[in-house]
Amino acid sequence: MKENARIEAFSDGVFAIAITLLILEIKVPPHETIHSVSDLWNSLIRLWPSYFAFLLSFGIILVSWVNHHYLFNVLDKSSRPFLYANGFLLLTITVMPFSTALLAEYIATDYVKPAVALYCFGGVINSMGWNLLLHTLYKPKPLLHSHVSFEMIDSIKRSTQLGMIVYIGTTVLAFWFPIIALVLNLMLWIVWITLSINAKTD
Amino acid sequence: MKENARIEAFSDGVFAIAITLLILEIKVPPHETIHSVSDLWNSLIRLWPSYFAFLLSFGIILVSWVNHHYLFNVLDKSSRPFLYANGFLLLTITVMPFSTALLAEYIATDYVKPAVALYCFGGVINSMGWNLLLHTLYKPKPLLHSHVSFEMIDSIKRSTQLGMIVYIGTTVLAFWFPIIALVLNLMLWIVWITLSINAKTD
Amino acid sequence: MKENARIEAFSDGVFAIAITLLILEIKVPPHETIHSVSDLWNSLIRLWPSYFAFLLSFGIILVSWVNHHYLFNVLDKSSRPFLYANGFLLLTITVMPFSTALLAEYIATDYVKPAVALYCFGGVINSMGWNLLLHTLYKPKPLLHSHVSFEMIDSIKRSTQLGMIVYIGTTVLAFWFPIIALVLNLMLWIVWITLSINAKTD
Amino acid sequence: MKENARIEAFSDGVFAIAITLLILEIKVPPHETIHSVSDLWNSLIRLWPSYFAFLLSFGIILVSWVNHHYLFNVLDKSSRPFLYANGFLLLTITVMPFSTALLAEYIATDYVKPAVALYCFGGVINSMGWNLLLHTLYKPKPLLHSHVSFEMIDSIKRSTQLGMIVYIGTTVLAFWFPIIALVLNLMLWIVWITLSINAKTD
Repeated sequence: MKENARIEAFSDGVFAIAITLLILEIKVPPHETIHSVSDLWNSLIRLWPSYFAFLLSFGIILVSWVNHHYLFNVLDKSSRPFLYANGFLLLTITVMPFSTALLAEYIATDYVKPAVALYCFGGVINSMGWNLLLHTLYKPKPLLHSHVSFEMIDSIKRSTQLGMIVYIGTTVLAFWFPIIALVLNLMLWIVWITLSINAKTD
Repeated sequence: MKENARIEAFSDGVFAIAITLLILEIKVPPHETIHSVSDLWNSLIRLWPSYFAFLLSFGIILVSWVNHHYLFNVLDKSSRPFLYANGFLLLTITVMPFSTALLAEYIATDYVKPAVALYCFGGVINSMGWNLLLHTLYKPKPLLHSHVSFEMIDSIKRSTQLGMIVYIGTTVLAFWFPIIALVLNLMLWIVWITLSINAKTD
Repeated sequence: MKENARIEAFSDGVFAIAITLLILEIKVPPHETIHSVSDLWNSLIRLWPSYFAFLLSFGIILVSWVNHHYLFNVLDKSSRPFLYANGFLLLTITVMPFSTALLAEYIATDYVKPAVALYCFGGVINSMGWNLLLHTLYKPKPLLHSHVSFEMIDSIKRSTQLGMIVYIGTTVLAFWFPIIALVLNLMLWIVWITLSINAKTD
Repeated sequence: MKENARIEAFSDGVFAIAITLLILEIKVPPHETIHSVSDLWNSLIRLWPSYFAFLLSFGIILVSWVNHHYLFNVLDKSSRPFLYANGFLLLTITVMPFSTALLAEYIATDYVKPAVALYCFGGVINSMGWNLLLHTLYKPKPLLHSHVSFEMIDSIKRSTQLGMIVYIGTTVLAFWFPIIALVLNLMLWIVWITLSINAKTD
């Protein structure tokens, strides 16, 4: 119990910092560039790519944290492979402030394809991180409570597989139709939050 | 107990990071622009909008954390809707470094109205987050201790409603009298801290 | 116990973030300004004010955290005034990345006086925060374990009083002899760490 | 137990923040410099020094945290010298965002030697921090559980000694063959993670 408490604390720290650093990517318009009140309103409105990217990534990290939280609820020990798989998963969370800033910078330009492709590819890597973590629950030694309901593990597996498919698909799609790829990302986000809120397993 | 401990840890992380990131918005005057000791004093004094915005937001986040802390003291379980409502509340805290930096950048300019209006609007959203969170305490399943004193929940409700009214009013007022709107924000802050320090419920 | 655990978690978060943000103030020399290996060595050596300010502030925050840690060990409840006094103390820690960056920017210039004076004044405010916090241990209600040894509280009081005297003195001194004021700060830091390591109360 | 829980929380905070701040060093190419999709792809590819430095440092901090985690599992008390030795170890973690950014900035230039030398020297200091910490486990008072298996302490000692030797060697080597020094660092990282994953002590 004590051991996992500390893995949770470290993971919570990384999730909390990554989700809060997202805001640093939204830059205040410098006052030298502003010459009227409507100028400032327009500048703030032109920041919509930043707001969109912020909200999308905030939601994704929040859903990840909720899943992480429920997963750890049914564990009471850990193994070194599990620790490193968890570290790899945290790596995929840590890079989100970068991919989010890249998306915000290019979403309203003609060069949006690489930004969307990389953002979706980040999702592929994140899904791989979840797969790896779920794998280490059984090998090299089982980490689950003996009396655990597998419904929750299965629900995380399903949402990981759905994510993997959507992210691989949208990574490819981004090379031709980046905006459609992005809309599919947003829909995945809405599906995930809806499924997650309505999940039976508290 | 264990479950809520982790929600608290994640929330504490977000509160602690948001409150500490505020300081990054206060920029040291670059030494190339300084040509005498009194130059530096003047530059430091001209940073007063940053100090003011920093102190205002620090106080607001601190009061939010204190309320959050007392609320979680009377809970011993959680639900998924509660987790997401808490996530939404944290979102409204996370954006404060941005709205604070915006306020600091424009408070001493002629273009202060949008900055104050958005700052107050952030308060409206934050009040909505609190309302949503309080709502999820009862539905879909009750989360409060059976023997809880409702005095504390009522006190948070009242301070949320007061905040909601003041923030809606000042958001509108900011379009005509931004400085008065800001002074009302400051007064709300003082009222909140005073009420909170004198509250009976420890 | 549970209540104070969360105050500790929030405080630990703020201490940990403030101490880690210090490093952001040390800027990597941009590669456009470098034209040889010895250029880079020289640029890195010319960053000594940043290294000095980083180490000084890292040590001060670390000593503060150690004292905070030992203080909370002898408490088992809290009060709202205590929470806000703790919040004020954390405010004085949170501003350190700013005062540290200011010190680093001006220590090697002719305009060092305001930077040293403000840095020392930050110490005065920090000492006042400690005084306030120690005050709320007894009023409005006693928070200490009944069987607590007062030796530790007395040791924190003494080191706070020593700090208050040195910081008030050096704040004034900085207007005439900033470097001497800074050396006295460094000596206070060495005295504190030495006293703290040799303290009897674990 | 309670006392060490808080040292762990503070340390976890510093590890989590340092590991997450690494991402801030990877800068999004500004859209003004980009004139075609392939321009953006090329810019993103030219960021490879940043990706490399990020991954190297992420891995090093993760291995450090895993070792720290296992070490604290076998302790149940602390001493002031131990607290300060731990603070010094955290200092060597805190500086990594700087040395990582320095490495990323210069790895693809002709002036890479100082960057690699300092990066390796950071490893020397980190090894010294571990040595100091391990020393305070026995003096001034023993901190280990009475029934502890020394295998784990020995394993940390060995990996610290290996690190010390490699880091001292590569610090010197960096003055002549910086790239070879860097490759040796990477190999140390792979050896450490492999050894750590296969370690018997969970």
